[in-house]
Amino acid sequence: MDLGRRELVLGGLALTAASRAVAQGRSRPLGYAIVGLGYYGLGVIIPQFKNCEHSRLAAVVSGDPAKAKKVAAEHGLPARSIYSYANFDTIRDNPDVDIVYVCLPNGLHAEYTIRAARAGKHVLCEKPMAVSVAECEAMIGACKRANRKLMIGYRCHFEPNNLEAMRIARSGGVGRIRYVRSEHGFVQGDPSAWRLKRALSGGGSLMDMGIYSLQAARYMTGEEPIAVTARESTDRKDPRFKEVEDMIDWTLEFPSGALGGCLSMYSANQNRILLMGDKGRVELEPATRYDGNRIWTGKDGREQEVTPPPGPGKTQFAAQLDHLSTCAVSGREPIVSGEEGLRDMRIVEAIYRSAREGRTIRLTSGQRA
Amino acid sequence: MDLGRRELVLGGLALTAASRAVAQGRSRPLGYAIVGLGYYGLGVIIPQFKNCEHSRLAAVVSGDPAKAKKVAAEHGLPARSIYSYANFDTIRDNPDVDIVYVCLPNGLHAEYTIRAARAGKHVLCEKPMAVSVAECEAMIGACKRANRKLMIGYRCHFEPNNLEAMRIARSGGVGRIRYVRSEHGFVQGDPSAWRLKRALSGGGSLMDMGIYSLQAARYMTGEEPIAVTARESTDRKDPRFKEVEDMIDWTLEFPSGALGGCLSMYSANQNRILLMGDKGRVELEPATRYDGNRIWTGKDGREQEVTPPPGPGKTQFAAQLDHLSTCAVSGREPIVSGEEGLRDMRIVEAIYRSAREGRTIRLTSGQRA
Repeated sequence: MDLGRRELVLGGLALTAASRAVAQGRSRPLGYAIVGLGYYGLGVIIPQFKNCEHSRLAAVVSGDPAKAKKVAAEHGLPARSIYSYANFDTIRDNPDVDIVYVCLPNGLHAEYTIRAARAGKHVLCEKPMAVSVAECEAMIGACKRANRKLMIGYRCHFEPNNLEAMRIARSGGVGRIRYVRSEHGFVQGDPSAWRLKRALSGGGSLMDMGIYSLQAARYMTGEEPIAVTARESTDRKDPRFKEVEDMIDWTLEFPSGALGGCLSMYSANQNRILLMGDKGRVELEPATRYDGNRIWTGKDGREQEVTPPPGPGKTQFAAQLDHLSTCAVSGREPIVSGEEGLRDMRIVEAIYRSAREGRTIRLTSGQRA
Repeated sequence: MDLGRRELVLGGLALTAASRAVAQGRSRPLGYAIVGLGYYGLGVIIPQFKNCEHSRLAAVVSGDPAKAKKVAAEHGLPARSIYSYANFDTIRDNPDVDIVYVCLPNGLHAEYTIRAARAGKHVLCEKPMAVSVAECEAMIGACKRANRKLMIGYRCHFEPNNLEAMRIARSGGVGRIRYVRSEHGFVQGDPSAWRLKRALSGGGSLMDMGIYSLQAARYMTGEEPIAVTARESTDRKDPRFKEVEDMIDWTLEFPSGALGGCLSMYSANQNRILLMGDKGRVELEPATRYDGNRIWTGKDGREQEVTPPPGPGKTQFAAQLDHLSTCAVSGREPIVSGEEGLRDMRIVEAIYRSAREGRTIRLTSGQRA
């Protein structure tokens, strides 16, 4: 960590015991509590701590005591670092825990982020940040009042191919940016998946893969959209789609005149980003997977495959975990803060509204963070 | 040609001398007059007659007498088969000419199609068919009254990769079709190009490359859209775009629930078609070029490149020319008739209207042919 005393002082932070330890050069990484031992928390995130430099697993929070006990035992956590959702708030008394990582269904993000902040912990919250703008604002407020960092799990900002694509775009490598295309989807097969229950997901493919499409349109252009126009198509007779949408297709308009064409879907597999300028393009496919992403440049099609420089961590997940640890200690804002999640959610609400009303929705500056 | 006496009788056609000759088994191919010796007529189409079985160059029509004379000489045409725009109507007296191929700028398609029909000739007219629905209807009416065939130059219906993609789609090779994407554009560099003058082009990229995107969305799904939602972005300070649009992005809604996301642009190079279903996909890139098109299938990305079976002619251009010759003789309707061009133009008008009004435009059955 690049951490000077001056930054610590200027940051004016109420440091926890653990972050003080890191700040003072003692090597103890910051402790994460993983909230939710589902596929992502247990299967994807927990195995990543071995790739981290500044982060370690310190606690687990689960509604399944047997599962929590087993995971804790496998990772050498003491019994006091196992929490249920009922006693989660007592995590405030656990000095091993610096950061709470909310890996719960979307509909629970706000509640657990706010409870974590009130318990005095920094928060890493999975995307989408929440299920409404109002929730996002409440989360930001809670973390601000608690003087804790809030970061959203936008892992693509730590993924080497996406970082290289952003670098090419910012360096003028495609000329004047005119169009970005981002398509994300998969065949959602299981009608009982929580992602298909509105109370847990807050919406369909847009609240899931659509967040990748929206994020990519923004980070590839480096601009904030000023208008959105969207169409939805969902087969409501399909048992999977009783509560949430299948497909949404939307067009973003950016101040430069660039357009962003985005797609999210639950009925076909797709994972692609394409940025087009008047001098060339950069394309990723797959674009935002856990691994195996590829990137090409060209003037007209995929002419040259690019090997991106190494990313900021051993993996995008480890880099993300360590980023928040570093920010928590240094007082810097995470590059993908709660404000960033709120920006997406304002656009998400406008996308739904546009699809519902069949018209273009302007995103006024008041609507943007 | 697969031509039976029964079809001839049932067709009830007024055959020209030349088509009678072909019908009677004499080998003389039908004669084409090429109207417009620009890049396409002279550079692309005329060299294709050597690849044809049933079509030959019979006349040229040009505003440049020297150029017309030179081309005629190179192809062994008699002086009486050289026409100007002023004396074009006398082509009615030329028994060598069976078909007039209108290779003029879009704004002249209607006039020369109607004059050709009145001169008793079949017509192959380049796409877009015209610059308005009203013109398309007048062209169809003129050809019907003259009992002449009218075909639009939708060459992709004769291109092996596009035909194979249609075959895969129709055979259920992608499962239930959910989404088609079609992007066509190029960097239009020359501000003096006729395509940038509204009087000649009728519009910008939509009237040019956009027709490919729209066509592909229709022939890949095999459906007629019921609604369209469009956004345009054009830098009106750019000297190229004083009169016509640069980019249009639009979403088509089909009766099955499939969506079509289409793009046309004059400020970046792009040429791709992607059809996605719940069981797989078919992708083309480049998709609709004169040659070099490629096609892949897969469940998730480009997994398998496909070698399509040979198309209906030596080249897509030759197949197109011979198709109309065959139809003219047999009395069959061309697979891409004037009605097909009219269908596109109704949608094109709705796209422009949607972009202008910032709302979804329904395409009622009355609006479709």
